[in-house]
Amino acid sequence: MLPEPIKKFVDLFSNLPSIGPRQATRLAFYLASLGKEQISQLAQSLAGLQQLKRCPSCFATYQNPEAQCLICLNSQRRRDVIMVVEKETDLVSLEKTKKFAGRYLVLGELRKTGLLEPEQKLRINSLKNLIKKEGGGQAEEIILAINPTTYGDLNAATLAQEFKDFAKKITRLGRGIPTGGEIEFADEDTLSGALSNRS
Amino acid sequence: MLPEPIKKFVDLFSNLPSIGPRQATRLAFYLASLGKEQISQLAQSLAGLQQLKRCPSCFATYQNPEAQCLICLNSQRRRDVIMVVEKETDLVSLEKTKKFAGRYLVLGELRKTGLLEPEQKLRINSLKNLIKKEGGGQAEEIILAINPTTYGDLNAATLAQEFKDFAKKITRLGRGIPTGGEIEFADEDTLSGALSNRS
Repeated sequence: MLPEPIKKFVDLFSNLPSIGPRQATRLAFYLASLGKEQISQLAQSLAGLQQLKRCPSCFATYQNPEAQCLICLNSQRRRDVIMVVEKETDLVSLEKTKKFAGRYLVLGELRKTGLLEPEQKLRINSLKNLIKKEGGGQAEEIILAINPTTYGDLNAATLAQEFKDFAKKITRLGRGIPTGGEIEFADEDTLSGALSNRS
Repeated sequence: MLPEPIKKFVDLFSNLPSIGPRQATRLAFYLASLGKEQISQLAQSLAGLQQLKRCPSCFATYQNPEAQCLICLNSQRRRDVIMVVEKETDLVSLEKTKKFAGRYLVLGELRKTGLLEPEQKLRINSLKNLIKKEGGGQAEEIILAINPTTYGDLNAATLAQEFKDFAKKITRLGRGIPTGGEIEFADEDTLSGALSNRS
């Protein structure tokens, strides 16, 4: 019933994690209504993602010609302080603060069960090996930058267990009242965090 | 901060109507994590949408080599019964019923103000001209297949006004209880419709 190019687009794009068949169909018809030039630009920008590589040390996506990403290559950054993040967008947000001068480990989104996927175990082992080789067996600090949600807490506990022999200190990001937030609406946990992190 | 190909992708894709910058960013990183072959397939399926044309009679997207879509070309279908739809996905859903043997006019999504956009006015005039030329000035029936929402009712009234001299009958899709729906939860309007459309 659908024109063949629409059907093909929908079949492929509705398999992507954040796009369902309905959104894919609407998107396909919208895209088809654009000019050829604009469609071609979009297709090229998608194909351009092929240029990206995955850093073998931190597993972040990168583009520079070297065999590692710019953060891992940067000798100004500490190698013995490692921030563990789930998503690359978390890494990007943290980098924007310009307050962190260590390295990263990108794990990929953690499951809601507290169990690690095989790829995540490989990445964790890769970091352990780096710490053994470069850090004399123990990093100074591993920061678990995992969301402070129920599932996040569970996953952070799993990760803390994994890394317990590989870092002198295992920390998480401080809890507190977000800028623009109101004390009245903060839950107990957040307020407890804000009290102990007061400055 | 973002790798250049990711940034370019996000810039272009977050301008599409149903995709925001956050979804575009997450999508970009996800796509970057796929194999080159898979990215290339997706890019090709997107580029494939360039092959589609817009039917000059009903304004639907089509692919066949002729100068009109297969529905408009089909001589088995009545030319004097026209279904006006907003979205092509509505057309696809209606075609799936196999209960309609007339033609279509695709208008594009109507605004919530009851006012028509210039492109929509052009399409309406194009249909009026077709009716003048082919239908002797009046179609047998124009069915306004517009959602039965408050905005939809407003827009349907605007369209009924537009077409009032161009069809013997102007109708809308019947209201009633949808299959799987429960009488208890149906609103008054739906129930009134269901009563007058009983079979």
